[in-house]
Amino acid sequence: PQVPYSLQHYSEETMLQRSKDFYKMLKQRRSVRFISPEMVPRDVIDNVIRTAGTAPSGAHTQPWTFVVVSDADLKHQIRLIVEDEEELNYRQRMGEKWVHDLAKIKTNWVKEYLDVAPYLILIFKQTYGILPNNKKKTHYYNEISVSISCGILLAALQNVGLVTVTSTPLNCGPRLRLLLKRPVNEKLLMLLPVGYPAQDATVPDFGRKPLDEISVYM
Amino acid sequence: PQVPYSLQHYSEETMLQRSKDFYKMLKQRRSVRFISPEMVPRDVIDNVIRTAGTAPSGAHTQPWTFVVVSDADLKHQIRLIVEDEEELNYRQRMGEKWVHDLAKIKTNWVKEYLDVAPYLILIFKQTYGILPNNKKKTHYYNEISVSISCGILLAALQNVGLVTVTSTPLNCGPRLRLLLKRPVNEKLLMLLPVGYPAQDATVPDFGRKPLDEISVYM
Ligand SMILES: Cc1cc2nc3c(=O)[nH]c(=O)nc-3n(C[C@H](O)[C@H](O)[C@H](O)COP(=O)(O)O)c2cc1C
Ligand SMILES: Cc1cc2nc3c(=O)[nH]c(=O)nc-3n(C[C@H](O)[C@H](O)[C@H](O)COP(=O)(O)O)c2cc1C
Repeated sequence: PQVPYSLQHYSEETMLQRSKDFYKMLKQRRSVRFISPEMVPRDVIDNVIRTAGTAPSGAHTQPWTFVVVSDADLKHQIRLIVEDEEELNYRQRMGEKWVHDLAKIKTNWVKEYLDVAPYLILIFKQTYGILPNNKKKTHYYNEISVSISCGILLAALQNVGLVTVTSTPLNCGPRLRLLLKRPVNEKLLMLLPVGYPAQDATVPDFGRKPLDEISVYM
Repeated sequence: PQVPYSLQHYSEETMLQRSKDFYKMLKQRRSVRFISPEMVPRDVIDNVIRTAGTAPSGAHTQPWTFVVVSDADLKHQIRLIVEDEEELNYRQRMGEKWVHDLAKIKTNWVKEYLDVAPYLILIFKQTYGILPNNKKKTHYYNEISVSISCGILLAALQNVGLVTVTSTPLNCGPRLRLLLKRPVNEKLLMLLPVGYPAQDATVPDFGRKPLDEISVYM
């Protein structure tokens, strides 16, 4: 069945102001690789994940699982796996060109933030679902849907003054899935360390394309 | 070079309140397929796209192009292409199972909103870039990056009281790319009709998974 849908209709002035304020807030988002160990209230993380769960998804499959790790031991085991695979990625798998393209960001395979951040959020995409009769349920566009959800999650983090770095740990999925005891239909898509920025945090000094380079009006 | 990064440090109480308010706002987002023809200020759309452009991207490639169509003729041509392909999708290409899975959403190949919505935003992913020396520049994770950007765009729309329906028009990419004169490195990822909800808009009556079904804490 269908139900009526309505939404507050703002004045044009209010809309313009709200659109500016929201842009101003998200413009401040950066991928921060230096995270403070300061504890973050768990309720806030709950609400951030609830917000991510409002994302649209192909055929309303909601194909996401958010694994939130705060246990120090488990964080360290994740770090060991990621650094192990990332060292191979940088030294052997990514190739000279990719490593060169990352040079300006100054990333490498050492990921201290995996120990330090109070939370690691590992986002799994459910590549298919399981029906009550044990048959597989197709999850149309699951990777796109989960990535959209991650975009909403990033906005929700910024809104409360928390930072992260969006990362897609290459080749770490299978080992992390086993470590975190996720079922075979789930595949790791993203790993986000979450916390306040460290006091002495720095980010690469680069800008973003202006509106006229990312848009065409017709 | 690296530059210092800092962000406002809210009190825990403020964070909690902000996280609740943001959740409350985005919880109201629904895919709305009945859009009002009422005009929307162009400046607001500009800011929404600027906001989408703040998304993270693999190796900072910013691999997105937002094509904003408000011209009535062009919207109608888009509608003809989409309905033409979607009819084939529903009748032949998607298969009985997929069509069945969509039955509860009550979608079909007739897309009146493509004529009616004041704006259509077509989001293209740049599958590679072109360097000054004409060589191809790899765009790592371009589809994931553009989908994250779309998630941020959806949040920005909701924030100003506008609606859309996230759609990935199957098999329409090549014809729409030609119609909109986009270069060969760009592929259509999403088509979003944007406007106020129609007075009599309805949405499928379904809920979302609660926190404990989408998250695991460890
Ligand atoms: C990747 C993706 C593709 C989608 N494709 C379509 C589409 O082609 N047509 C459509 O009407 N809805 C489409 N949707 C919208 C979903 O049906 C909708 O998000 C889902 O039913 C949940 O409803 P909600 O967005 O109102 O929460 C798509 C959503 C996503 C995320
Ligand atoms: C899909 C995706 C994968 C990414 N992977 C990594 C990663 O593995 N390691 C990392 O340090 N940053 C990663 N990033 C972050 C980008 O390097 C960063 O978004 C980009 O340099 C732009 O900087 P900004 O986020 O500060 O605007 C990734 C971003 C995206 C969207």
